[in-house]
Amino acid sequence: MLSQSQTKFINSLKVKKYRQLHSSFIVEGEKGVDELLNSTLSTQKVYACEEWIDSHQDQLESLKIEYQLISPDELKKISDLSTPNQVLAIAVMPDEPTPAPESFEGMALALDGIRDPGNLGTMIRTADWFGIRQVFCSPDSVDVFNPKVVQSTMGSFGRVKIFYTDLENYFVNLQNKIPIYGALLEGEEINKKRFDKAGIILIGSESHGIRPQLRSLISHPLRIPRFTRLTGENQAESLNASVANGIMCFEICKQLF
Amino acid sequence: MLSQSQTKFINSLKVKKYRQLHSSFIVEGEKGVDELLNSTLSTQKVYACEEWIDSHQDQLESLKIEYQLISPDELKKISDLSTPNQVLAIAVMPDEPTPAPESFEGMALALDGIRDPGNLGTMIRTADWFGIRQVFCSPDSVDVFNPKVVQSTMGSFGRVKIFYTDLENYFVNLQNKIPIYGALLEGEEINKKRFDKAGIILIGSESHGIRPQLRSLISHPLRIPRFTRLTGENQAESLNASVANGIMCFEICKQLF
Repeated sequence: MLSQSQTKFINSLKVKKYRQLHSSFIVEGEKGVDELLNSTLSTQKVYACEEWIDSHQDQLESLKIEYQLISPDELKKISDLSTPNQVLAIAVMPDEPTPAPESFEGMALALDGIRDPGNLGTMIRTADWFGIRQVFCSPDSVDVFNPKVVQSTMGSFGRVKIFYTDLENYFVNLQNKIPIYGALLEGEEINKKRFDKAGIILIGSESHGIRPQLRSLISHPLRIPRFTRLTGENQAESLNASVANGIMCFEICKQLF
Repeated sequence: MLSQSQTKFINSLKVKKYRQLHSSFIVEGEKGVDELLNSTLSTQKVYACEEWIDSHQDQLESLKIEYQLISPDELKKISDLSTPNQVLAIAVMPDEPTPAPESFEGMALALDGIRDPGNLGTMIRTADWFGIRQVFCSPDSVDVFNPKVVQSTMGSFGRVKIFYTDLENYFVNLQNKIPIYGALLEGEEINKKRFDKAGIILIGSESHGIRPQLRSLISHPLRIPRFTRLTGENQAESLNASVANGIMCFEICKQLF
């Protein structure tokens, strides 16, 4: 039985202010909660329907994680999904935001002003797929602990490290030590380039692209070509940010790793 | 001034049954409506705020399109967006669903059971970017006239032709005439393959992948590799369907066009 105050508390975590106040965030769905339980993040409590608890009771008890049986109707009241799954967990946010590291292994993503939670989550998932373990977000990007972001990472939130940092300062401090690969409409065709050094892939926001202060810091301006032989250039003007990110990550990482 | 019956009519178009009953669908946002006005589709009526009408009045009058001035508050009542834009249009659905063509120029996409409107819209936008002009959807895919699909195509709905068809029958009837490139976890690494013939790129659903009956009809099973040198394979289990589609389209089209 879910109390009114529990319902109120969980729903408050859909708002950034309350996530920060309570140092807690929501993880929904079987895939996400499985990954949470297997990650280094702490789980505060799990709310789940009977079937899920039946198949996870041993794991929950060995991990000493508090859990509560709720009905599908109760889950609907706290879920952020249009078709709620079996389970919703409350996870503990890391104490202090870690500053972005001065160096890292392999590739990194830098995301400039991504506003759509689905896009941010999908880009974290894509990074994870290609073995990219750090993502730098400009401070005006959507909050990674937003339930829709967590949901669209499909569990990758537990493996990829996310840092919110002023990208301009960060890039300037790198002092040309590593390449910055930026997706720009006026860049060079990415499929015609050879890459031999790991660095940062920079992706711009859905509506404004990469902001001018960052554009000048790109060492390798790249673009994903359209193929216009059959259409006479009457084509889409842009790609979705997550799709552009996926193609950039694939094309660069396949040459390096 | 928006009447109650207008509000009711427009909101009814968010449901497939009423879109079919009225042969009408919603197009939202400046980009989408601009593309609608420039497409071969008919526009029934435009509802817009003052600023948008001021800059489009000549175009609307030369196209003889009916329009109505509404307030931002009225737009909120009919919009499907969390932050409504300046304009919403009602477009006319093509009379009869066209059967899928027996042959076509260039590449095509085939989408097996895509349920997420954002994914379908993004895949149509990606197809358009790469010059792919036909998309075949299995009958259980989300409806292309769903406002969220139309919105996420960012105007590409006016250029790419969408057909709903039984993919198994369709592929069997092609009788091996053209390659079917399918994204499968057990396929061959796409970046190590050479492609010399246009065909169909087949993408599976978000949760079940490509259904078994279709898997056996794939002539070129392909997979997007993960790069595990730095991570010891502790990585995401799958890519988002739109991202996988983007990488498949890019990798195949860049060799052909």
